[in-house]
Amino acid sequence: METKQNDVQKERLEQQIRFIIEVDKVKNIFRQTYLADGQRKENDAEHSWHLALSAVLLKEHMKEDVDLAKVMVMVLIHDLVEIDAGDTYAYDTAGAATKREREVKAADRIFGLLPEDQGTYFRGLWDEFEEYETADAKFAHLLDNFQPLLLNDASDGKSWTEHDVHKSQVCRRNQRIPETSEIVWEKMVEIMDKHIEKGHLKAD
Amino acid sequence: METKQNDVQKERLEQQIRFIIEVDKVKNIFRQTYLADGQRKENDAEHSWHLALSAVLLKEHMKEDVDLAKVMVMVLIHDLVEIDAGDTYAYDTAGAATKREREVKAADRIFGLLPEDQGTYFRGLWDEFEEYETADAKFAHLLDNFQPLLLNDASDGKSWTEHDVHKSQVCRRNQRIPETSEIVWEKMVEIMDKHIEKGHLKAD
Repeated sequence: METKQNDVQKERLEQQIRFIIEVDKVKNIFRQTYLADGQRKENDAEHSWHLALSAVLLKEHMKEDVDLAKVMVMVLIHDLVEIDAGDTYAYDTAGAATKREREVKAADRIFGLLPEDQGTYFRGLWDEFEEYETADAKFAHLLDNFQPLLLNDASDGKSWTEHDVHKSQVCRRNQRIPETSEIVWEKMVEIMDKHIEKGHLKAD
Repeated sequence: METKQNDVQKERLEQQIRFIIEVDKVKNIFRQTYLADGQRKENDAEHSWHLALSAVLLKEHMKEDVDLAKVMVMVLIHDLVEIDAGDTYAYDTAGAATKREREVKAADRIFGLLPEDQGTYFRGLWDEFEEYETADAKFAHLLDNFQPLLLNDASDGKSWTEHDVHKSQVCRRNQRIPETSEIVWEKMVEIMDKHIEKGHLKAD
C-alpha cells in the first residue's frame, strides 16, 4: 500500500518536472517592452517575476479585497500560453483576431502536462485571468498593465516611440484600471502625460 | 484628514515604484546555470520566477507543512541582494568568504528603499532564508537547489562540465535536502548518477 502511494508520488514528480522544463521556454519569449535600462527587451519569465513581486507591494492600493497568494500564482502562469501562441503585442490588431484561439489550444496542451488536479487549478486561474471579472483578475490585469508602463517610463518611452503609440490606445487598454485602483490610475495618467509632453506618446 | 491619508498612500506608491524599478536590475545578473536548451545562461529574475512557480507544484512532496504564499515571496526576493553583491557561484570558495558581508550591506540598501513595514517584511524573509532553519526556509532552499539541477540535466550537464564539478560538491551543497523531501532527494541522486555515467559530473 505504501509502495503504491510512493509510485503515485513519483509519477506526479515526473509530470511536474516535465512541466517545469517545458515552461523554461518562456525565458525565450520576448515582449515589446524594454528593460528599465533600455538595453534589451524583456522576456515573459522576467515580466511574470516582476508582476508577482509587485503584487505583494501594491495590494494595499486595490479598492476590493484580493487573495494575494492566488494573484501571485495567476501572474506567474498568465503568459505560459505564449510558449505555443507567441507574444501578441498589446496594439497589434491583426494578431489580436486569432489570439484567443491560439491561446486556448496552448492552454490545453501546456496545463495538460501536469497531474490532473494541478493542471485544472492552473487552467482555472488562467481562465479567470482571461475573463477579467473577479477582483483577483482585475488586480492581475492592473499589474500586467502597470509594470510595462513603469518600464516604458524608465526607458524614456522607447517602446512607445518605436511603435508610434497614441495615448488613446493606452487609455483603451487600461480602461478598467480606475475601477481597480484610483491611486494607481492617477499615477498612470501622470506618466502618460509626461511622455506626451516629451513626444514619446502621441496625443490624439 | 482624507487628503493627508491620500498623501501618505501616494508617497508609499512612489517608494514602491522606485523599488520596482531598482530590482529590474536582477534581469541582468546572470548565473552559471544554462537554460534547458543550453543556449545561454539564466538570470536571477528568470530563476526566481521558476522557483516560485515550482513551489506551487512541489509543496506536496515536503515532509513538513509549509506556508506556500510566504515561500513564494521568499524565493521571489531571495536573490535581490545580488544587485549590489553579484552572483557568487555555488562552488566558488574565494567568493563565498566575503559573500555574507557583501549581501548584508546590499539587503540594508535595497530593502531600505521600501516603506518601512514592507522593507522589514522582505528583510525578515531574506534573513529567514539565509538562516536556513524553518520548514519554509528549507523548502525555499530545496527549490533553489533542485531547479538548477533540473536545468543542468536538461542542458546535458553543460555548467557542471564547464566548472569541472564533483558529485561530492553537489552532495555537500544539498546535504539538507533528504530531511526536507525524500522523494526529491531520490530524484536528485538519480540525476547526479546519470551525469556521472555520462562524464559530466566527476565521481570522487
